[in-house]
Amino acid sequence: MKFYYVLHPRPVVIIGSGSVNKNEINFFACSWITPVDDDNKIIGFSCWKGNYSYKLIKKYQQFSVNVVEDINLIWKVGTSTGEKIDKVKEFGIEYFVGKKLDIPIIKKSLAYMECKVVKEVEFGETSFFFGKVENWEGNFDNYGIKEFWKYPLHKAGKAFVFPSKEIKFSLG
Amino acid sequence: MKFYYVLHPRPVVIIGSGSVNKNEINFFACSWITPVDDDNKIIGFSCWKGNYSYKLIKKYQQFSVNVVEDINLIWKVGTSTGEKIDKVKEFGIEYFVGKKLDIPIIKKSLAYMECKVVKEVEFGETSFFFGKVENWEGNFDNYGIKEFWKYPLHKAGKAFVFPSKEIKFSLG
Repeated sequence: MKFYYVLHPRPVVIIGSGSVNKNEINFFACSWITPVDDDNKIIGFSCWKGNYSYKLIKKYQQFSVNVVEDINLIWKVGTSTGEKIDKVKEFGIEYFVGKKLDIPIIKKSLAYMECKVVKEVEFGETSFFFGKVENWEGNFDNYGIKEFWKYPLHKAGKAFVFPSKEIKFSLG
Repeated sequence: MKFYYVLHPRPVVIIGSGSVNKNEINFFACSWITPVDDDNKIIGFSCWKGNYSYKLIKKYQQFSVNVVEDINLIWKVGTSTGEKIDKVKEFGIEYFVGKKLDIPIIKKSLAYMECKVVKEVEFGETSFFFGKVENWEGNFDNYGIKEFWKYPLHKAGKAFVFPSKEIKFSLG
């Protein structure tokens, strides 16, 4: 069993890359992502350098983070390459352009972020991109995403789980 | 609502720091953690520089990652400081020394990792530590941690949720 399963199941999102204005965009799936710093609004995610989205992120230095319930779409964008197919047309992805950045946002997102790349750290065939969050939207209540039970968690391969609806409070 | 709630609920773990042999150890809670690179076995996590554990990780350049079901323990180690109290005694934490590294591992962990620091990236009052995984253990099946429904996901404040038991498969 791979080491990284110690950190799964974990939230899986769809990353949008490229430029809407230049008509050069792509989407891929990612669960190796985390908040990094509150004050400077930094998040980070891991990206394989062989990805078509890697090229677009290098070129435009921006990306979006989209939380979507649809595990079939996640699987499809995560196992195909934008180098060979137009994922937007192929999978019928409806999107709009970000409010702060010229990036694609998936319409049916439960929540999303618009980010500018601020740093890239390389480990072999992987780059870890740090991004500054320029805008974020979502259907929140006092405890984060309101319909959190729709947030897919990646387990392994084609297996996903969802958070249970019941909230438990620490006795602290 | 803070930007980082777009990435919550997410797995929360207890990080062990320090040196067992030198009798200088500490534990704190972290959910801003992610796998980074498969080939080189890299993970990364965010650490506030004001933490006592930050000092220990800087000093010994190593840490453990412990998956525990106990949200009360997570809350307690996450809201107290090792500078003022001995968390191990105060909270009755049973631990053993790692197999590869001289770090503390929590006995009742569902899974754990032993890691050496390989890089530190700073953003204001936060450091993002990249660690190389030297050893990992856990009760796994073919889809990761067997009893994954015991893996706490941090929502916000004292609120936690757990993964639902039902596994859903993408139609691919």
